[in-house]
Amino acid sequence: MTNKKPLLLITNDDGINAPGLRKLISLMRPLGEVVVVASEKIMSGMAHAVTIQDPLRVKLVTEEADYKEYMTNGTPSDNVKLAKYQLLERLPDLVVSGINHGSNASINIIYSGTMAAVLEATIDGIPGIGFSLLDYSHDADFSHVDKYIVQIVRKVLDEGMPDDIGLNVNIPKVSDTPLKGIKVCRQAKARWVEDFDTRKDPYGREYFWMTGNFVNGDPALDTDQKALEENYVSVVPVHVDFTAHKYVEKLNFN
Amino acid sequence: MTNKKPLLLITNDDGINAPGLRKLISLMRPLGEVVVVASEKIMSGMAHAVTIQDPLRVKLVTEEADYKEYMTNGTPSDNVKLAKYQLLERLPDLVVSGINHGSNASINIIYSGTMAAVLEATIDGIPGIGFSLLDYSHDADFSHVDKYIVQIVRKVLDEGMPDDIGLNVNIPKVSDTPLKGIKVCRQAKARWVEDFDTRKDPYGREYFWMTGNFVNGDPALDTDQKALEENYVSVVPVHVDFTAHKYVEKLNFN
Repeated sequence: MTNKKPLLLITNDDGINAPGLRKLISLMRPLGEVVVVASEKIMSGMAHAVTIQDPLRVKLVTEEADYKEYMTNGTPSDNVKLAKYQLLERLPDLVVSGINHGSNASINIIYSGTMAAVLEATIDGIPGIGFSLLDYSHDADFSHVDKYIVQIVRKVLDEGMPDDIGLNVNIPKVSDTPLKGIKVCRQAKARWVEDFDTRKDPYGREYFWMTGNFVNGDPALDTDQKALEENYVSVVPVHVDFTAHKYVEKLNFN
Repeated sequence: MTNKKPLLLITNDDGINAPGLRKLISLMRPLGEVVVVASEKIMSGMAHAVTIQDPLRVKLVTEEADYKEYMTNGTPSDNVKLAKYQLLERLPDLVVSGINHGSNASINIIYSGTMAAVLEATIDGIPGIGFSLLDYSHDADFSHVDKYIVQIVRKVLDEGMPDDIGLNVNIPKVSDTPLKGIKVCRQAKARWVEDFDTRKDPYGREYFWMTGNFVNGDPALDTDQKALEENYVSVVPVHVDFTAHKYVEKLNFN
């Protein structure tokens, strides 16, 4: 007898013990059969990295009715690939990633392991949704996210997702102002301006910590940054196509 | 007195000793002042990963007239950031990455450290070009690439690059048929179908090596894959925007 419940694959990039992942699991278990494949270590900033120089290891850490949890030494992209080709008995109906501790809006998507897992799903034609909270702290308050996350996931489970797109969902941090709702928008054109904190180790050797400031140079009203500033949950439909299409016709090297 | 030569920043993801990097350096030195910032280790498959959990280290390994070479423990994205914010005295006129040992056409761009360096440059409004050869071997034959690489770099140095785009340039491997020229095209919609090679270590514990087969499900004639199959050098104009624009209007969560 096959399980008629939807199969939800859950991963993240803050590691298997992150409170954001635990919150997401608690919201997803009532919606279907859940398999978690998450990294033992923090994979924040790992982007779409895949592990090809080293072997991967996987450990089944929890097994209950309609629930399994695997811990790996891989990246978020590795985890989706491992799930799909090695661990799951059927294709997942949905990949849900997060809840990330910190924004993945705008340019952050390209550095994000959370969103890499979503994009990895879309490459294979599987719907994917990444959730991120605009609060970097380990003890971030996730108490206001339930309604929005469940609403978005239910809709995608019911209606599917067209054309191999995924969703990049960012949620403002808790404040005195209630969230205004959901806004579908485009990725803002912003960037990080880095600053390297230069130090000496106990042996006199110089080293650097990367730090940076987020700079939004995109004043338009239709962006994820603008929606978040206005206390909306931002939803950006995303796909993997780096082509700057209008220049395919314009460039000429002959 | 300021140096009037263009400043070229060179990096790659196959590590500072890769023959593809050495070839690129030899082609770029006659064109301007060259600074190389490359990783000590192989960073293939690292995508857009940035090092935020660990400190970065940098070593100046070569210094000659109009030429410096730095070795780091960072990723290709780290190297561009380190160069821009820590190592260079002025902004580079161009970031050139590669020559990668292996294709970065189609979906490969998302896993590629070589192309991450290019995209990192474009985020900051600096022209970037990534070169890749369709030959994974360490001893790949680069004898046929000179003309095309110099032509493309010269054109970009002379004319600049519009709208913060970069170029993803892939070159067929040496064969009996001469290359037919340069074709500007779009990224093909393809994917990797993974296969995990399951083994036991000497202590009886299971581990996996990721392997895979490239599957091109995009039969159109205007793609990079098609151009490469026909023995053209493929050039895809690229930028960082994951938004699936046509769905910004279509999706509705209210």
